Amino acid sequence: MDDELENGNLGPYADRPRTFPNMRSKAYNPLVRTLNIFRILMGINFRVLLILLFLGLGVVFYIGARTSPIIVFVFSVCIMSFLLSIYLTKWVLSKDEGPPEMVQISDAIRDGAEGFFRTQYGTISKMALLLALVILFIYLFRNLTPQQESSGLRRSTSAFITVAAFLLGALCSGIAGYVGMWVSVRANVRVSSAARRSAREALQIAVRAGGFSALVVVGMAVIGIAILYATFYVWLGVDSQGSMKVTDLPLLLVGYGFGASFVALFAQLGGGIYTKAADVGADLVGKVEQGIPEDDPRNPAVIADLVGDNVGDCAARGADLFESIAAEIISAMILGGTMARHCKIEDPSGFILFPLVIHSFDLVISSVGIFSIRGKPDSSLKSPIEDPMAILQKGYSLTIVLSVLTFGLSTRWLLYTERAPSAWFNFALCGLVGIITAYAFVWITKYYTDYKHEPVRTLALASTTGHGTNIIAGVSLGLESTALPVLVISLSIVSAFWLGHTSGLVDKDGNPTGGLFGTAVATMGMLSTAAYILTMDMFGPIADNAGGIVEMSQQPESVREITDVLDAVGNTTKATTKGFAIGSAALASFLLFSAYMDEVAAFAQEPFKQVDIAIPEVFVGGLLGSMLIFLFSAWACSAVGRTAQEVVNEVRRQFIERPGIMDYKEKPDYGRCVAIVASASLREMIKPGALAIVSPIAVGFLFRILGYYTGHLLLGAKVVAAMLMFATVSGILMALFLNTAGGAWDNAKKYIETGALGGKGSECHKAAVTGDTVGDPFKDTAGPSLHVLIKMLATITLVMAPIFL
Amino acid sequence: MDDELENGNLGPYADRPRTFPNMRSKAYNPLVRTLNIFRILMGINFRVLLILLFLGLGVVFYIGARTSPIIVFVFSVCIMSFLLSIYLTKWVLSKDEGPPEMVQISDAIRDGAEGFFRTQYGTISKMALLLALVILFIYLFRNLTPQQESSGLRRSTSAFITVAAFLLGALCSGIAGYVGMWVSVRANVRVSSAARRSAREALQIAVRAGGFSALVVVGMAVIGIAILYATFYVWLGVDSQGSMKVTDLPLLLVGYGFGASFVALFAQLGGGIYTKAADVGADLVGKVEQGIPEDDPRNPAVIADLVGDNVGDCAARGADLFESIAAEIISAMILGGTMARHCKIEDPSGFILFPLVIHSFDLVISSVGIFSIRGKPDSSLKSPIEDPMAILQKGYSLTIVLSVLTFGLSTRWLLYTERAPSAWFNFALCGLVGIITAYAFVWITKYYTDYKHEPVRTLALASTTGHGTNIIAGVSLGLESTALPVLVISLSIVSAFWLGHTSGLVDKDGNPTGGLFGTAVATMGMLSTAAYILTMDMFGPIADNAGGIVEMSQQPESVREITDVLDAVGNTTKATTKGFAIGSAALASFLLFSAYMDEVAAFAQEPFKQVDIAIPEVFVGGLLGSMLIFLFSAWACSAVGRTAQEVVNEVRRQFIERPGIMDYKEKPDYGRCVAIVASASLREMIKPGALAIVSPIAVGFLFRILGYYTGHLLLGAKVVAAMLMFATVSGILMALFLNTAGGAWDNAKKYIETGALGGKGSECHKAAVTGDTVGDPFKDTAGPSLHVLIKMLATITLVMAPIFL
Repeated sequence: MDDELENGNLGPYADRPRTFPNMRSKAYNPLVRTLNIFRILMGINFRVLLILLFLGLGVVFYIGARTSPIIVFVFSVCIMSFLLSIYLTKWVLSKDEGPPEMVQISDAIRDGAEGFFRTQYGTISKMALLLALVILFIYLFRNLTPQQESSGLRRSTSAFITVAAFLLGALCSGIAGYVGMWVSVRANVRVSSAARRSAREALQIAVRAGGFSALVVVGMAVIGIAILYATFYVWLGVDSQGSMKVTDLPLLLVGYGFGASFVALFAQLGGGIYTKAADVGADLVGKVEQGIPEDDPRNPAVIADLVGDNVGDCAARGADLFESIAAEIISAMILGGTMARHCKIEDPSGFILFPLVIHSFDLVISSVGIFSIRGKPDSSLKSPIEDPMAILQKGYSLTIVLSVLTFGLSTRWLLYTERAPSAWFNFALCGLVGIITAYAFVWITKYYTDYKHEPVRTLALASTTGHGTNIIAGVSLGLESTALPVLVISLSIVSAFWLGHTSGLVDKDGNPTGGLFGTAVATMGMLSTAAYILTMDMFGPIADNAGGIVEMSQQPESVREITDVLDAVGNTTKATTKGFAIGSAALASFLLFSAYMDEVAAFAQEPFKQVDIAIPEVFVGGLLGSMLIFLFSAWACSAVGRTAQEVVNEVRRQFIERPGIMDYKEKPDYGRCVAIVASASLREMIKPGALAIVSPIAVGFLFRILGYYTGHLLLGAKVVAAMLMFATVSGILMALFLNTAGGAWDNAKKYIETGALGGKGSECHKAAVTGDTVGDPFKDTAGPSLHVLIKMLATITLVMAPIFL
Repeated sequence: MDDELENGNLGPYADRPRTFPNMRSKAYNPLVRTLNIFRILMGINFRVLLILLFLGLGVVFYIGARTSPIIVFVFSVCIMSFLLSIYLTKWVLSKDEGPPEMVQISDAIRDGAEGFFRTQYGTISKMALLLALVILFIYLFRNLTPQQESSGLRRSTSAFITVAAFLLGALCSGIAGYVGMWVSVRANVRVSSAARRSAREALQIAVRAGGFSALVVVGMAVIGIAILYATFYVWLGVDSQGSMKVTDLPLLLVGYGFGASFVALFAQLGGGIYTKAADVGADLVGKVEQGIPEDDPRNPAVIADLVGDNVGDCAARGADLFESIAAEIISAMILGGTMARHCKIEDPSGFILFPLVIHSFDLVISSVGIFSIRGKPDSSLKSPIEDPMAILQKGYSLTIVLSVLTFGLSTRWLLYTERAPSAWFNFALCGLVGIITAYAFVWITKYYTDYKHEPVRTLALASTTGHGTNIIAGVSLGLESTALPVLVISLSIVSAFWLGHTSGLVDKDGNPTGGLFGTAVATMGMLSTAAYILTMDMFGPIADNAGGIVEMSQQPESVREITDVLDAVGNTTKATTKGFAIGSAALASFLLFSAYMDEVAAFAQEPFKQVDIAIPEVFVGGLLGSMLIFLFSAWACSAVGRTAQEVVNEVRRQFIERPGIMDYKEKPDYGRCVAIVASASLREMIKPGALAIVSPIAVGFLFRILGYYTGHLLLGAKVVAAMLMFATVSGILMALFLNTAGGAWDNAKKYIETGALGGKGSECHKAAVTGDTVGDPFKDTAGPSLHVLIKMLATITLVMAPIFL
């Protein structure tokens, strides 16, 4: 403590009174000297790498060619998009990093982010390995399904396949997170630097950096599943005499989805707690108590706050979207396979591989969208800053139009069958339903969170009567905002189901069977622009960080203005992405639920078509499922609250012990705040994460035993099914509530900061800041974690199904 | 405006600087000159009344005697308890009303409460009449069940019965509300006056006043159902050749439950909005902005706040508990009848009338509990104030012990059957499960809302870091507090079901059938001390009001101390009653749900035993059900927020326009605040109320049409079943969350006010006040309305079932 104080008292800090020269904190050094794989890969040994890469590619294409031409197409598109993403990085990295004070700040952020990432993923990987052992153990002692047995699959093979898929999913999910953070900690300073020149250029850099990680994340999800699929296909000799049918193959991939969602859950929890604890803590003392602006260099928690944007928003969202896409692809593949089997379609591979193709096209059309955002304005520059939202929206519209075209094309290519010649058209309409649903979700979220519309203005008005009415109004707004999305989702489930149902596909008894697959196609439609959506999402935290760097390095007001506009747009895109994510999660959970019932039926060797909530135990399962959502949200929020209190106490301590900070005479100890937040969020992520993983297993296992003693067949599986279903419904509503309330509070504050209702510094603004603080853990910790939780519950029950039987 | 100012400037107000002599407001006079039925009934024409009463009693007993000796027993107990309640009123009214300044305040409160009650129930009764017409119309054009047809029941009779039951239920519910309010506006001033003498006497008056309305409410629910049952029995010639079976009779009573819950919903909504809008509005300007204490006579909204306690807590809670008990008795009677029919029990009346007997005993043992609280301390007075909670708790323990005894007795008396000689013992155990559940609920609520325990202390600690962390911590606490009650409910549903299942009762195929009835008996066990619980609940607002009167009439500190202690105890008992209410609602909803399925099966003439949530439309029904809860809560909270803002603006206006108020030189215009709150809450209660009533009907009807066109049988009924089930689960969780969070915030503030963490006036206290403000609409508007909503959904679907088929 003493020599820190001495450091702080050194002369130089007093010389340049508006900033501190060295933001890099010594205290954090032990953590940050990290082996940077990516740098090694990109720097040295380029030739060896190239040879290895070509060899690998050759093997992959060989296996792909032996599986299906569709797989070869998917591989090609993915590899092209990887090449494109390498071009995007090169382009972003070639931009200048600005003056040294910016670089120093950026370095401090990068050190903090990479240090936390390394520790966090160290913890996560240990837990993943432990879980892999558990899965291995379960699968070695369980029975196989009759189909699997008849195809000569052995227990050990099945166990190995599931564990390998789980670990690969976990690894890819980790890489997806890392990529998101890797580019954002490099792009932020380049955006700040570009903001000194032109708003348009800054926008372009942020979009391209976001585009890089979006292409990598989506491409990796697609190619990972495609490689697994092709490998299993060739290895198990699928479709040859006496071995497995191709329609049963997708069920072997569920481990991948579970691995992905397992890592994403902890990434989102840890990152979410980190970012919001730092943010809330910094704001409570900085903005509210000391009255200094956001991202002011005098605030000891400011670097932790900026680090949080990267580990919370970039890394976690990368992992989240990765697992969303992976889970949805796998569940749609399972449903496609099941339907193809029931309808005895001659070549089922089109139905099974359809999701992979849709996402390959997603990569193509999103790239077009990303590149449509140019560095120079189209006409002569009239106003200094164009509306960046309009530019992004234009790109989105282009992507949407292209997606309608490619979706129609794909359905005609892959879903055409002699048995029902017009079925593909019905499925194309299902896709359209999905695309419209996505658009409606984006619009509804905008309506409830943008201050151009009524709800946020009413919320801002409620702040004039104090903190209390602001919170009441925000909570009501959030609760109310669940209604329209639920109506949209309900409409799209029912209509997609009926479009599929009437597609003309029938099983051997003549019953229509396409309904569920129709819902799957609608989900695919919704996700058909995922890469562009993810680009817009990643754009937000990069712009936010750039703004922070600009503020901390005390750039002129005009530069700050540019990054402020970008930041505000980023807030809106972040909110809309969440709406989009929860909408697709709602649709996907319904698919995963069906896949679970198929899986149970296959293992139990009896039909499992109903979940009857009139049975008391099943009703209890539902109660427990909904309760899980409430408890999980509680723990996620209180984790932020507790960690934020630690930050507040530390920041208060520094302000008291180092009175010179406020006059720029002493340097705050940024490193200590970073270290406190990092260790606290690692500690706090365990409890909610463990709850999510342990409770469905425990409930299923307990009721299995109860069912055994009371002679109730399949009781465990039924109770888990109800738990899953109720948790999904409650989770969707709770996530919508948390996300929208948080977003609305944030923007109500921003609206008041534009000068409305008294503007900055008024009592009304103070009340709005309280709302914003409350909204932070809602919208960035608990809400997004619930998206992941919903899908993780579905995948964990799929993988763990054998122990409920 | 001008002459108001002139009035305010009159001399006398300046003479006695600490209070205002005339609290009765002229502005409100037109509303308050109300025809007071009760006064007329109790005052003049006593002999005529007596003769009429005896005549009525004679008829009732004659009908009862023709039905069953059990009915005669029920009648006798109810009438005795009515006599007892008349004694209690006389006793309470015989107490002195204290000095004139107290009487004046009390009169102003009474005028406000009765005026609002009259307008509110005017609106409600118009809506009830409209709904009665709709029901009549539906029942005139629907088919009867085969059993009903074979028993010679005609459509017009069935329609008349349902409508008559509905209207009687609505009327009794209204009277229950009125009785609660009637006594509380009279007892409050007597408690204040007694508090000048002794804490113990004040406590006794409050308890006996609460006991009066509790006995009336419970007694009326029981006798109302008993009279309906006996009348229908005699009128329809039940059990005679060729007419209706007694086991089908309870299904005719559902209208009564629906009428009760319909009125209770609007009573709770209107009253809840009134009380909390006034409270929040008064606190926001008074406490937070002007820094004057709670219930200070200078606050223009103070009379509205005190009126709110009566119309919100007393009247609404009376109606709420009335409908709880009515709905639960009816559903248990239906289940008892169904089971008796399946098991071909020789004399089914024991099983059907069991709930009525349990509640008759409830009246007896609760009276013992109420009278066990004596006016004088047992030993010599050592401390000036004993812990009133301990006294109430002692009474509760006595009641609980007695209830275990009477419950065992009743099961042996009524549920003994030759077919399964040990069944009664299993059912007695079910009752014990229920009693333990009630006790556990009370304990859990206390743990989460009492500041003697960890959670509230943590919440108070979170207030030290500001408004934001206080809210985050409160929300997490509320969300977390749902876990234990859900586990308890789950355990009791499963164990009561299994106790019933293994009771030895079997249907004609030898399948065990007692499971559901076991759950019903557990619910009865939980409610077997309802009258005592209601007494403790009513005690709260009376004490609160007494405190307000003491404060406003500027009594010495020692008197205020006594009412403060009573008020704090009232807060705890209020919170625990809510836990108890939601627990019993959870159990009861499961019964009502089964009754609904029986009803649909009877009408559709085919088995309806499953609600399969794997069907997309049924899943959508579930989604819509959960959404209904969120939207309803949103609208209930925002209604309070909006009305509170009106109050805040009015109070601010008065403080600005009448600067003399703060120095007691000008009198505030209480009447205007009362009028504003009254008209706003009547306006605001319509939207959420209409949502609750219209949405299940609309959803059921829409999906019935969809089912008709797609050939899906019973689709409407299935979707409504899922909607009901999901709404119940989400409703339980949401209500637990809202109630507990609100209670905890309230007590965290109280804890700080004891001097902890800086005490009154500190920054920490301000943050805690914000939390308390937010918690107000949570715990007293949205939360309790959800209890009613859950049961109203169940009864509305029961009554409206014909239009979903």
